Amino acid sequence: MQEFVTFAKRMADAAGEIIRAHYRKPFEIISKSDASPVTVADRSVEERLRTMIEDMRPEDGILGEEFGIKPSKNGLTWVIDPIDGTKSFVIGRPTFGTLIALWEGDTPLLGLIDQPISKERWLGAEGVTTYNDMPVRTRRCTSIKAACSASTTPAMFNGEDALWRNFDKQTKMMAWGGDCYMYGLLASGFMDICVEASLSPYDFAALVPVVQNAGGWISDYEGRALTLKSEGRVIALGDPDLWPQVVPLLKSSA
Amino acid sequence: MQEFVTFAKRMADAAGEIIRAHYRKPFEIISKSDASPVTVADRSVEERLRTMIEDMRPEDGILGEEFGIKPSKNGLTWVIDPIDGTKSFVIGRPTFGTLIALWEGDTPLLGLIDQPISKERWLGAEGVTTYNDMPVRTRRCTSIKAACSASTTPAMFNGEDALWRNFDKQTKMMAWGGDCYMYGLLASGFMDICVEASLSPYDFAALVPVVQNAGGWISDYEGRALTLKSEGRVIALGDPDLWPQVVPLLKSSA
Repeated sequence: MQEFVTFAKRMADAAGEIIRAHYRKPFEIISKSDASPVTVADRSVEERLRTMIEDMRPEDGILGEEFGIKPSKNGLTWVIDPIDGTKSFVIGRPTFGTLIALWEGDTPLLGLIDQPISKERWLGAEGVTTYNDMPVRTRRCTSIKAACSASTTPAMFNGEDALWRNFDKQTKMMAWGGDCYMYGLLASGFMDICVEASLSPYDFAALVPVVQNAGGWISDYEGRALTLKSEGRVIALGDPDLWPQVVPLLKSSA
Repeated sequence: MQEFVTFAKRMADAAGEIIRAHYRKPFEIISKSDASPVTVADRSVEERLRTMIEDMRPEDGILGEEFGIKPSKNGLTWVIDPIDGTKSFVIGRPTFGTLIALWEGDTPLLGLIDQPISKERWLGAEGVTTYNDMPVRTRRCTSIKAACSASTTPAMFNGEDALWRNFDKQTKMMAWGGDCYMYGLLASGFMDICVEASLSPYDFAALVPVVQNAGGWISDYEGRALTLKSEGRVIALGDPDLWPQVVPLLKSSA
């Protein structure tokens, strides 16, 4: 596993170099069919990471946001989101991140969230999550009324506004614009609940090991473990004991 | 005016020292009647800044988030929000800011947005807005379809969801969790539209000079200049020429 961790860090270092060169600089924005702002940096990073994987580990599969799937020959698959939180990147806000994960079938082995401007990195693997190489843990939170929650955008709930309103009204506070960065903050014990929808596998593949190895809970809204085939509704809790209190909030009719 | 600028910077320096000592540390949260998370840091900063003003400029008025109004004896009033974006502060995300403004009646003279973790500071006065002491300008954006917009939380629109949905659907992209930081990004020319509601005077008093002196537009939803008595609906545009296209989006029945 140590070789995977070292390799993931090298990839994140390479991604950060490219991203810093493009951050807050004028750039072409290439429109995709889903109309999200995807930048030249996004594509450059994924190309670089795919080349690194193909050079160093030609048998491994790759699932990337920009360039799709390369099937695995050995059961291992790297899942990459070069810039998660492209909206934040586009407006020059350093809360986006590079996501790198290694999965073996439906089992997440390693996850990394890297913020290359503030130089913050969370890495979860083998029972430990680190923040800039120091171990971190989620915090206790036994009441929904005391919980700090966050999400990314109300639009991701596709009109099921009751979902976010439940959290906005019933938790102590709800922040927005979270992106991957909020899962790092949850792993570090600064907040308690992340709730999102409409995510793709490359959006959450790295979050699972970061949250779980810090002591937290991450699942779909029915409490099932996330796999690379999950439908994109994600709930993460710093304290797994909060789960029974969160269940009623995850119903749009609540 | 130079003495005011120098004094505002000294206050921001003092605020930043206190905030950095409290950031991502365990702290007591004191509940206020409006249930927002207000921290010990928030109160400590405002006490410090009020003392500085009372010592150096005893005739000036003060309007602060935490400790209310001290009437002005000379027409000048300092408006202070020690930590704008307390939710971001509480979860350990460096997109909050200290806001310091100087107004003479209904005329804004100076505004400062300080992010003490990333050490970014916008200051607008006398026709120039600076970012870390370098002049910045808003950017051109002549079509709403090309505009990058942002807001803080859908909850601030108090159920008038059409307001944020208009921007979410009709601009190129909409980011959330903006806080004061997004007005700095707009002044620097990285984004085009900030739209908010339910703000208090201490939330927007410093934003007006930062945006206007960078070449941007800031007003209420009817296009009227903001004063310390404005009702808290704020729209800012990097390019004032966008205004006619924005007007229809600011109606909840649109």
